[in-house]
Amino acid sequence: MSYNELVERVKKISNIGNAAGVLRWDQEVMMPEGGTPARSQQLATLSSVSHDLLTDEKTENLLDEAEPSDESEEAVVREVRRGYERAERVPNELVEEISTATSEAHPVWTQAKEKDDFEEFAPTLERLVELRREYADHVNPDVPRYEALFEEYEPYLGLDTAERVLDTLREELVPLVDDVLSSDVSYESLEGIDVDEDAQEAMVRDALDALGYDWEHGRLDVAPHPFSSGTQFDARVTTRFGDDPLDALTSTVHEFGHATYTLGLPDDEYGTPLGESRDLTVHESQSRLWENHVGRTLPFWEFFASRFNEATSSDITPQRAYEAANTVEEHNPIRVEADELTYHSHILLRFEVERALIEGEIEVDEIPQVWNEKHEKYLGFRPDTDAEGALQDIHWSHGSFGYFPTYTLGSVLAAQIDAKVRDEIDLDEHARKGEFDPLRDWLRENVHRHGKRYKTDELIEHATGDELRASYFVDYAEEKYGKLYDV
Amino acid sequence: MSYNELVERVKKISNIGNAAGVLRWDQEVMMPEGGTPARSQQLATLSSVSHDLLTDEKTENLLDEAEPSDESEEAVVREVRRGYERAERVPNELVEEISTATSEAHPVWTQAKEKDDFEEFAPTLERLVELRREYADHVNPDVPRYEALFEEYEPYLGLDTAERVLDTLREELVPLVDDVLSSDVSYESLEGIDVDEDAQEAMVRDALDALGYDWEHGRLDVAPHPFSSGTQFDARVTTRFGDDPLDALTSTVHEFGHATYTLGLPDDEYGTPLGESRDLTVHESQSRLWENHVGRTLPFWEFFASRFNEATSSDITPQRAYEAANTVEEHNPIRVEADELTYHSHILLRFEVERALIEGEIEVDEIPQVWNEKHEKYLGFRPDTDAEGALQDIHWSHGSFGYFPTYTLGSVLAAQIDAKVRDEIDLDEHARKGEFDPLRDWLRENVHRHGKRYKTDELIEHATGDELRASYFVDYAEEKYGKLYDV
Repeated sequence: MSYNELVERVKKISNIGNAAGVLRWDQEVMMPEGGTPARSQQLATLSSVSHDLLTDEKTENLLDEAEPSDESEEAVVREVRRGYERAERVPNELVEEISTATSEAHPVWTQAKEKDDFEEFAPTLERLVELRREYADHVNPDVPRYEALFEEYEPYLGLDTAERVLDTLREELVPLVDDVLSSDVSYESLEGIDVDEDAQEAMVRDALDALGYDWEHGRLDVAPHPFSSGTQFDARVTTRFGDDPLDALTSTVHEFGHATYTLGLPDDEYGTPLGESRDLTVHESQSRLWENHVGRTLPFWEFFASRFNEATSSDITPQRAYEAANTVEEHNPIRVEADELTYHSHILLRFEVERALIEGEIEVDEIPQVWNEKHEKYLGFRPDTDAEGALQDIHWSHGSFGYFPTYTLGSVLAAQIDAKVRDEIDLDEHARKGEFDPLRDWLRENVHRHGKRYKTDELIEHATGDELRASYFVDYAEEKYGKLYDV
Repeated sequence: MSYNELVERVKKISNIGNAAGVLRWDQEVMMPEGGTPARSQQLATLSSVSHDLLTDEKTENLLDEAEPSDESEEAVVREVRRGYERAERVPNELVEEISTATSEAHPVWTQAKEKDDFEEFAPTLERLVELRREYADHVNPDVPRYEALFEEYEPYLGLDTAERVLDTLREELVPLVDDVLSSDVSYESLEGIDVDEDAQEAMVRDALDALGYDWEHGRLDVAPHPFSSGTQFDARVTTRFGDDPLDALTSTVHEFGHATYTLGLPDDEYGTPLGESRDLTVHESQSRLWENHVGRTLPFWEFFASRFNEATSSDITPQRAYEAANTVEEHNPIRVEADELTYHSHILLRFEVERALIEGEIEVDEIPQVWNEKHEKYLGFRPDTDAEGALQDIHWSHGSFGYFPTYTLGSVLAAQIDAKVRDEIDLDEHARKGEFDPLRDWLRENVHRHGKRYKTDELIEHATGDELRASYFVDYAEEKYGKLYDV
């Protein structure tokens, strides 16, 4: 009885969160600019109403009284309790202070970045860091502050796992990046082939068709910063079109991976943790798996090049597309434009900077210098400006610290899942024939349908038979880029 | 202090309602079909959360303790109290029963209409009628049931006003309709000029530009049943494209009128009753004013015909467009396609049928017969099918009874406002020059900016110097259609 009441309450909270998701999608994709003041208030209200429902004494009573009758129900109670405890430990005033501070931070960061003026952003960043330290002290006083914040995005892997993974990459991937960057081999992007936006859109829609995107439960739109959002009934993707049609494609395939995860969550568990995705690491593994281990492979291009050519009136070969999709650029300071390899160098430096910052080992005003030194260390050069350096990413202005490592954890997990799937299924042969259902079905069976039933580490063990290890990614990268760059 | 707390609470409730508005807009315009199950639950949650906030004891205490310090604050308290009392009087179980019954009714109605089978819808309709009678007994036991329901849509004019207006139209407009329909004069629609959808869209966008639609706070999309929704920060319109480009135009101008009202509500009162529109009669007056008293006038076409021709590669004269926009069709059973005159005959028959139904004077299974008799009486013919008759409109399947009269009240009020404005401003001269700001500014000053500050009757008196009267509309109709149809 109490269990059912708890689930009713949880579904309400989840519906409010999903409603907020629709409002945010609309804000990014559809809303006229002048709508901001009302939209901000609507979102603040939904967030406060949901927070009130979650932290209400009633929730605690229901949690205490709930008698889960099987493992599924135990998982639901575990996840709700975790959410309840974290939310309940943080004073409402602090939640509101953080919400106000991040609202105010966004335009300051935007302007500072535009003017390439780190000092303009510094006081705001300092305030956000202070507030987040305070938040960390409340939400989990038993662990270092950075770890408490990291757990916000990845609840179960532990910061030690993230460190282990990043250590391995620092030791084994950074030298590979060095070798690739100093190799004589270089490839050209497809920027020069000049494909207009309509043709790019036709091409990415065709790719979504080919990959099996479920248009009955999704849609494609344009957004300045592509993202995906929604539920198992309605998981939408966005993309953007620029000079290089491959950017639009890889970005679309990436978001397709996220949406496919969401669409694979069980319908009848909508609104409970069993019908919700397992946080950022696993989500990112799904997007990277499709983006990198499908979309950037030669077999995919052996299938897709002709369709690409038809949609864009081009004439590229599979080999040329494959090479273009795997170009490692020598002097690119922009994380979101980075290739599969240097991407993790960008994450390493951010991880080190933000952890030191939250733990009080460096001050805000030291950031640009520390950033640039690490940039040189991991990427071989210094960015020309802070706009392309320490001011580059939006995350800190959102008050998000501890988010960056989940990008790398997701990539690494993608490689680990890919290795496991390839033990069982000839993905290359299927890709050559344009058959993507076998991969999707495998992921649905082993990852998607479980929702939050398992903790992250359990889910990974369950799906791949191993704990999360960077070695799968390193092996994959050495094999692939070794051949491509003759190193 | 209590007053401020009350306002905080009211703003929360309003934000939840506006969030639901975004979700409904998305559902009609953007959502993939498969999204329905999740969307229904999200909307049900928002509605229940908002109902809980409104009917909470805390709201009553705040209302009792609030000491409004001026007329504005008094108006806020009056409106919140009205909402609180109506909501609080209805048992939660009944609210939920109605919500479930209407959700279930919609597909039944859709199918019955498709199959032209009234009997299939009859049991569902009977259930809805019973529930709404019960609702009426709770929400206002002091008045006849139909009146209690009518007050849901028009709180302050009173059913006696609606009756007075409809009596006048029955006496004075129905004979005019007869005369026009038997006149030798007839006009042709623009259906034949063959304008594709892209050209129609360019044309209606140009019309919105010309009328002064604020694209910074709005957008135009396509929806099967055009509507407008939003807030003073973001008021969107929809339209549809069919054979006749004038249908798209008049529909767009109609929704523009609604949106212009919404955009004229005071920004700094967003979320309070002073920043919300004054219910359906006044809202419909604004859409009809722009649609009929601007968009269907000769001076408007003297300005717009050339722009229409340019956008649609046509070659029509202002006179031809004016005549086409004011064609009275002899055998059209469809309300939403009706012209300015016969429209009210459609409303008269619906009003009489639904009132008799709610008051128990007729039974559900008698509806088709009664409908068709009244149809003959007011429109001179019987519809061929129930799909074009008693099953035509969606309202009853929504459990909405008492809504229809507000369409007529809105039209009549539009004519009354138009008469008043024309005493002060030469609208025709402005229209010929494409100047629509003077009308918009007058409406903003005299109607929009007041929100719910005045009761409907006070607002009408305030804006036009008279109580609501059908005679303004009858005079307008006799003058206009007398000339057009030589009667």
